[in-house]
Amino acid sequence: MNSYKKGKKKVVSKRSLDHFFNAESVAVIGASKDPGKAGNQILKNMLAVGYQGKIYPVHPTVEKIFDLKCYPDLTSIPGKVELIVVVIPDFGVPAVMRQAARRGDVKAAIIIAAGFSETKIPERVELEKEVLSIAKEAGIRVFGPNCVGIINTVNHLDTTFAPNIRQSFREVSFISQSGATGASILMFAQDQPVPFGFNKWAHVGNMSDVDIIEILKYYGEDEKTKVIGMYMEGIENAADFLDEAGKISVEKPILILKVGRSEIGSKAAESHTGSLAGVDLIYDGVFRQTGITRVMTIEELLDTAKAFAMQPLPRGNRICVLTEAGGPGIICMDEIGLCPQVTMATLSQKSVAKLEEILPPMAIINRPSGYIDMSAAALEKAHREALEVVLADEGVDGVILITVPPTFLQPTLLARELVEVVKNSAKPVLTCLMAGEWVKEGRIILEENSGPTFDLPQRAARTMINMVKRSNFLQRIMEEAGCNES
Amino acid sequence: MNSYKKGKKKVVSKRSLDHFFNAESVAVIGASKDPGKAGNQILKNMLAVGYQGKIYPVHPTVEKIFDLKCYPDLTSIPGKVELIVVVIPDFGVPAVMRQAARRGDVKAAIIIAAGFSETKIPERVELEKEVLSIAKEAGIRVFGPNCVGIINTVNHLDTTFAPNIRQSFREVSFISQSGATGASILMFAQDQPVPFGFNKWAHVGNMSDVDIIEILKYYGEDEKTKVIGMYMEGIENAADFLDEAGKISVEKPILILKVGRSEIGSKAAESHTGSLAGVDLIYDGVFRQTGITRVMTIEELLDTAKAFAMQPLPRGNRICVLTEAGGPGIICMDEIGLCPQVTMATLSQKSVAKLEEILPPMAIINRPSGYIDMSAAALEKAHREALEVVLADEGVDGVILITVPPTFLQPTLLARELVEVVKNSAKPVLTCLMAGEWVKEGRIILEENSGPTFDLPQRAARTMINMVKRSNFLQRIMEEAGCNES
Repeated sequence: MNSYKKGKKKVVSKRSLDHFFNAESVAVIGASKDPGKAGNQILKNMLAVGYQGKIYPVHPTVEKIFDLKCYPDLTSIPGKVELIVVVIPDFGVPAVMRQAARRGDVKAAIIIAAGFSETKIPERVELEKEVLSIAKEAGIRVFGPNCVGIINTVNHLDTTFAPNIRQSFREVSFISQSGATGASILMFAQDQPVPFGFNKWAHVGNMSDVDIIEILKYYGEDEKTKVIGMYMEGIENAADFLDEAGKISVEKPILILKVGRSEIGSKAAESHTGSLAGVDLIYDGVFRQTGITRVMTIEELLDTAKAFAMQPLPRGNRICVLTEAGGPGIICMDEIGLCPQVTMATLSQKSVAKLEEILPPMAIINRPSGYIDMSAAALEKAHREALEVVLADEGVDGVILITVPPTFLQPTLLARELVEVVKNSAKPVLTCLMAGEWVKEGRIILEENSGPTFDLPQRAARTMINMVKRSNFLQRIMEEAGCNES
Repeated sequence: MNSYKKGKKKVVSKRSLDHFFNAESVAVIGASKDPGKAGNQILKNMLAVGYQGKIYPVHPTVEKIFDLKCYPDLTSIPGKVELIVVVIPDFGVPAVMRQAARRGDVKAAIIIAAGFSETKIPERVELEKEVLSIAKEAGIRVFGPNCVGIINTVNHLDTTFAPNIRQSFREVSFISQSGATGASILMFAQDQPVPFGFNKWAHVGNMSDVDIIEILKYYGEDEKTKVIGMYMEGIENAADFLDEAGKISVEKPILILKVGRSEIGSKAAESHTGSLAGVDLIYDGVFRQTGITRVMTIEELLDTAKAFAMQPLPRGNRICVLTEAGGPGIICMDEIGLCPQVTMATLSQKSVAKLEEILPPMAIINRPSGYIDMSAAALEKAHREALEVVLADEGVDGVILITVPPTFLQPTLLARELVEVVKNSAKPVLTCLMAGEWVKEGRIILEENSGPTFDLPQRAARTMINMVKRSNFLQRIMEEAGCNES
């Protein structure tokens, strides 16, 4: 994959967005003792995730919140303040920005408060302009207003007020044009069998200054970010966005949940962020050309992000489905069959002979091509051995393994048989253990050590389809590069 | 809805399948002390769910299993035996069937054992014929072979060996052509916020005698069954099936997860149960005409079944989306917008004025039509009041309510505000509380008392689409009936 990384300049000095994501000190203007307020939850989150820098709560009268000394205003904070998080209401924001400007050390501001240009009320549109002009003059970059803020798992920063979030380090970073969608993705991610945390996470709000293009670029250059996910409504300068995305996507997968698929969806998006969602078919085509992986649901976004982060890409499009259960295997085949870019693998005679030896007599091997119903009589060891055989077959680029563990198949034993094979494979293996609590421990063993697991065969199939499509895209880029050189 | 129930005869005497589902005594041939064996799990399940009839374990040497007296063979059981469950291997089955025939009281046999006609091996195809001919002569009906068996929650019968299943009474019954899919649906169902149990459940196996048509008919006549779900691969006598389904579907919704959507999926189905999945487009069209609700995933099957069982149908196709969060609202609108049969409601001026009064100033009301973004500032009470307003609007046939509860909105308080309104509404309300553990208690409150809840807006949208489609179908049937009368 290194062949794609040519001519990329690594910037070592602190880049502008570092003042947000890698801030060494944070002042929270509008800190609160009331657990129902955002200004309380933000502090709670910062402490819960273990932020390493300095935290300065600002409140006119309170002396301490969560044992942190409070300051009556920004001016009275003795130490350096790099980032301010502004939680006070709309019309109070300009005064805070002026204080920040006067300090001279503030480099970045996250404005949580809503009630600015998104209301389309002239007075409030003006208010946003005023805030921006103070910030620009003072060299302060602005996130928002009307945003939830950012998370950086590397230095344990969390300026959001999403409840109940724990952090765990992964190589997927996320950008959202909706705070609620972003927050619910956070919550979905941590409800995975092994809680999944984003490396960096950002909700952009009104994008008065920092926009999704700049964050995309920042993630593109971030060494800790290997996969980028995004919830997108629309953007004015779409050409610039696609230009940037196109550059990054040859190196890092970009997954986008883009709304505006139907007319009323587009209209709702326009009401929400004023975004023109654009003609969906055009987005669809341009995304494909640019190598962007378009996902349709929050689940597909998470599934695919996990797979890209934890598994190798298939080298080609020849997939093998290894199932212990007929019905779920067929459901999986149905989904794969609807995607013309994926083909079923052709197994060698040698592999077929070996599988006949390993599997119970009632197994259905390679009928249709690349499909193996191991039968419910296949035990833990047979699963592992059959997986080894198909992974060793040169005609196979990736494997989906499906099991609905019956009473005589222990999910944890099965997981322990499989985990090393999956972990050491140079080909992707997506495992689908159905269903529910009965298989949860098994899924945890696999997710902790090897790769993503699934509860529905269609989810595994769609994820493999996305992996094949990305592999095809990179192949095409390589070929084009080869043509240019010759 | 009673107007559809015309001319249906209620059968009160014991019908043939009653000897399975309502058996008063069950002998388990192949009972086992080994917890890894199906013959052990079946007894465990029967005891765990509290089967009310007599249980007779049969084992040549063991004296007791789970404190139940064992019998060396069928002949030595003193009491009446209505149903036998046969778990011993293939070639042992005919002898058991002969014993059953000799007893004279056995009316029904569930043959769990595999290795019959599904192997396509002539000797084993013959074996199945032999078993059938003994049964026919003795007047014993046969389920299977190669099946998981049945569940009836009403009399606490469970002949399956699916692990870890608890029973809870609901009005949805299920038929599966795959044991594993059927079992995983059971497990998915009990992992819902409020565990969901099927009223009756059956896996048909090889359908040597009892087939899906007969079970469908049985469920159709069953007063305890209000909704029928099915996993289907294919059937030889499709015309008979559709004829029966057409009769039932005017009274009870039939939901089918039918595979064979793609060519390789069809081929895999053929390998599995020998079913010809048929041309998918034809099935699709015929299902629509027959009023069958076709679902695409296990999730959609459960979601829609719950909604049909727990909620009134919309009277028309005019839907209102009430959301606390922009992004998830747009995702929902996108999905609805892709279905031409659903329209967005037109709210009256009065409703709009009331909503403006109730909701925070930054709410976006009726833009686009029928879409209300209440904004994140809408608290528990505002949710309830806004829901009451749109439900009272004559232009609204159904409501989807979406919330990603921020830190200052308590999911349980929200659920308590909403639950009575949802429960007492004559129009369907589908609530989507995103996401995960943070909202689980709230979802439980709503599911226990009113209707289904969702974690993804697309799932709520697809469920509402299925409800609108069914309402349209019933409307069409009424109109046709009206035309015939005039």
